[in-house]
Amino acid sequence: MDASRPRADVAQEGVGSYVQACLWAAREVAPRLGRLGSLRKDRALAAMGQALLHAEGEILAANGRDMALGRQRGLDAARLERLHLDGSRIAAMVEGLEAVAACADPVGEQIEGMVRPNGLRIAKVRVPLGVVAVIYESRPNVTVDAAAIAFKAGSAVVLRGGSEARHTNRALAEALRQGLGAAGVPPEAVQLIDRGGREAVLEILTARGLVDLAIPRGGADLIRFVAEHALVPVIETGVGNCHVYVDDAADLAKAEAIVLNAKCQRWSVCNAIETLLVHEGVAGEFLPRIGRSLARAGVALHACPTALGHLAACGGDVAAATEADWATEYLGPTLAVRVVRDLGAALEHIARYGTRHSESIVTEDRTAARRFLQEVDAAAVYHNASTRFTDGGEFGFGVEIGISTQRMHARGPLGLSELTTYKYIVEGDGQVRAG
Amino acid sequence: MDASRPRADVAQEGVGSYVQACLWAAREVAPRLGRLGSLRKDRALAAMGQALLHAEGEILAANGRDMALGRQRGLDAARLERLHLDGSRIAAMVEGLEAVAACADPVGEQIEGMVRPNGLRIAKVRVPLGVVAVIYESRPNVTVDAAAIAFKAGSAVVLRGGSEARHTNRALAEALRQGLGAAGVPPEAVQLIDRGGREAVLEILTARGLVDLAIPRGGADLIRFVAEHALVPVIETGVGNCHVYVDDAADLAKAEAIVLNAKCQRWSVCNAIETLLVHEGVAGEFLPRIGRSLARAGVALHACPTALGHLAACGGDVAAATEADWATEYLGPTLAVRVVRDLGAALEHIARYGTRHSESIVTEDRTAARRFLQEVDAAAVYHNASTRFTDGGEFGFGVEIGISTQRMHARGPLGLSELTTYKYIVEGDGQVRAG
Repeated sequence: MDASRPRADVAQEGVGSYVQACLWAAREVAPRLGRLGSLRKDRALAAMGQALLHAEGEILAANGRDMALGRQRGLDAARLERLHLDGSRIAAMVEGLEAVAACADPVGEQIEGMVRPNGLRIAKVRVPLGVVAVIYESRPNVTVDAAAIAFKAGSAVVLRGGSEARHTNRALAEALRQGLGAAGVPPEAVQLIDRGGREAVLEILTARGLVDLAIPRGGADLIRFVAEHALVPVIETGVGNCHVYVDDAADLAKAEAIVLNAKCQRWSVCNAIETLLVHEGVAGEFLPRIGRSLARAGVALHACPTALGHLAACGGDVAAATEADWATEYLGPTLAVRVVRDLGAALEHIARYGTRHSESIVTEDRTAARRFLQEVDAAAVYHNASTRFTDGGEFGFGVEIGISTQRMHARGPLGLSELTTYKYIVEGDGQVRAG
Repeated sequence: MDASRPRADVAQEGVGSYVQACLWAAREVAPRLGRLGSLRKDRALAAMGQALLHAEGEILAANGRDMALGRQRGLDAARLERLHLDGSRIAAMVEGLEAVAACADPVGEQIEGMVRPNGLRIAKVRVPLGVVAVIYESRPNVTVDAAAIAFKAGSAVVLRGGSEARHTNRALAEALRQGLGAAGVPPEAVQLIDRGGREAVLEILTARGLVDLAIPRGGADLIRFVAEHALVPVIETGVGNCHVYVDDAADLAKAEAIVLNAKCQRWSVCNAIETLLVHEGVAGEFLPRIGRSLARAGVALHACPTALGHLAACGGDVAAATEADWATEYLGPTLAVRVVRDLGAALEHIARYGTRHSESIVTEDRTAARRFLQEVDAAAVYHNASTRFTDGGEFGFGVEIGISTQRMHARGPLGLSELTTYKYIVEGDGQVRAG
């Protein structure tokens, strides 16, 4: 069975049967994957890399088809750029596989151990989740990353990529499955569902008992669709309306460097900032300065009335902010700017508009910093550092499959450990319960 | 505002507004609760206990009304027994509050800490969930337990008890809120929603952004209703179709003690067993023996054809099992019995019918035990011990709010730590990201 390709009979059977067949294949193979040793998994990851290199010609040809179709359908330049593959991007995928192989295997790790007064020995041990579905948009490298991370974490993976990358994803998944097979591992570990539109996504999201976790990776619309329709457990990722707050006790040189980095180092990512909050005590000094730097970097500013006054002479593209700006994730060269009365007002703004992703305070005042770090409810809260560090690699996790913005199960970067669960193993010699 | 009592204007405003007002009160008070110190919380728990004792008269009177209404409505004896309160049960509630106070405070605990090569100091720190809703059936002690555990874990609690305990729960919640107020803690920490029927439950389950976690505690019907309708995160609890498997290498004296304990020590609980699996190699010796013991304990047996033969002479109530028996959680003095060919067949039976709660193997064969402990997917897997130990107290957690049967966030007994989440606190001195 080759579940990475649509069955010839999909049209007759309908989307439901096609998706169910893929999910069942994943479900059935999952226990075997959970018992694979680390060495075996790392060898299979290496074989997956070899298979990608071996299939480079087919993958680039498939990507060429997607690019041509994308141009015909009028995809914008940014999306085409994300879709495009070349030799160096395939080499980066292979490096990604090597990075996953280099990470410690979370499966079997003893998290806690205790001996009870009655002699029972209790071990809390990491075990795989089982079947992990990843629903993502155009970047084809997610196909490889998600498959590798789920596999190393002992789970089967169900991949649902964007339709514009269909041929590319199919070629990538086929190569990954060949690599698994060459390493003696069941290729059913990787299931690609690339047909059936929204109906197929719904089928995945409602497959209670078949899917242990669904991870949406993409824009706010995708996340919302998944959150609204999922009956299976979900970890929401990646919606980041992040802030830097420049306190009146800030070192303004640090503040300038941090704001520029958090906004401009890469603006299409979830941990880039969308709003700058400035204490009114330093607004007159800081805003003209940062305004000039941001103007040079090509960033348009949407400013509150007070900020507008301070930014008038900075020479950039400055407009009046509306209420909608505070809630907007631009993911581009635009920054909202607001002057606030004090730290409390900054905390209120963040509590109201933030998406609990990454928030930073710049200050030399330890008391203000402590209050901010304690009171801000977000996956990562920063003092005197850029929000751009919220990333599995930067946190030392080796790899990540996304940034969780929810509170349950796992928060922030999702590494291998976050993709597992645990069970209690209890060993006795005949203990029974008295009371 | 006294949100534990229905507003006079509920009828006009409708259930939605009433529930929303309670949820908002919880949401608004949650950050303040999250910042309370341990000492302050423990003093408030003591004050809650004092208030229960002080209000004992009112509570017992309210309970008397519920008991009278329950008898009128024809509640069965078991439900009336669960509903009934007396001085000793109130004393037990106060002891429960003391047990929660005695537990370590999970809030603020540093789970991990690291210093990155760039000098960033990252601490992974436990923080409260925020607003925890508990939806439960008749036992009124859950009102006190859930409020105490959520409060100690730094969260506001929304309590939705069964309608048959309405007056009792209202009196209990009122006393708890008075205790909180006496200790200088906002009584809005405890919200009781005791009106509005299923509509109110739906309102809680769909309150995204207001409710951080909903925990259903009750029978399979309640759990299913919650799982199907919840848009907020849920931890499913307490459905236990648990097994003991007696291997051919079992010490049959241990097996007998473990089976009797796991079935009979208390049969109305989720970690009691519902099916006994016996290896065919010891069925002839073990089944007549355990059959006699179970008959003496008043347990009816629903047996597979092979087991029937071995149980014929045991003198108890023995009937032929149907397929439905393997999937039934009796929660009473009935046990399904099946003879299996070998360990593999036992594993298949458990994978097919088990609810991933608690499973036990009795064997002296280490290899068989290891395979069972590894392959069975359940919150707790046992070797030579009774399944009745799956319990926060028995695991040394001090207290628990239920047994999770799901894989995400937390599995098995839910203690204080399991009722928290975490955030990453990152401290730098101006670090920005390079690549």
